Amino acid sequence: MNFLAEIKIMPLKELLDPQGKAVLGGLANLGIKSVEDVRIGKHIQLRIEAESAEEAKAIAEEASKKLLANQVMEDFTISIS
Amino acid sequence: MNFLAEIKIMPLKELLDPQGKAVLGGLANLGIKSVEDVRIGKHIQLRIEAESAEEAKAIAEEASKKLLANQVMEDFTISIS
Repeated sequence: MNFLAEIKIMPLKELLDPQGKAVLGGLANLGIKSVEDVRIGKHIQLRIEAESAEEAKAIAEEASKKLLANQVMEDFTISIS
Repeated sequence: MNFLAEIKIMPLKELLDPQGKAVLGGLANLGIKSVEDVRIGKHIQLRIEAESAEEAKAIAEEASKKLLANQVMEDFTISIS
């Protein structure tokens, strides 16, 4: 069976997000001033062949831990559909 | 009121995703072979001060169209919480 894993990878909350601060400044320059904070991460979609949703999730988790996410600075959440 | 806008920005489906192909190769090298396709995009969180969820969504949409997404090559979806 074919599953789609959606992985959201964001910088850890306690870390400064310089990229986010830059975008925040850019939005203010465009006159969009009601945005108070910006945090930027990655959204990764994996198309996985597996026997069950549980197996697909385990594969997505392994891929995230081994390659997709830098767990020193990022956390990740996975949803399977 | 304070709202959190979650914006998922992905490359258009018909476009080649070289970054995704590179990650797909990396996963195979790590022995993770049941992943058939990888697509990589951005996940952006905006903290917005607005009168209503609708107003927050309109602000997030404006920010996406003006700065966050390159609509020639990407599409975006917004959820407000």
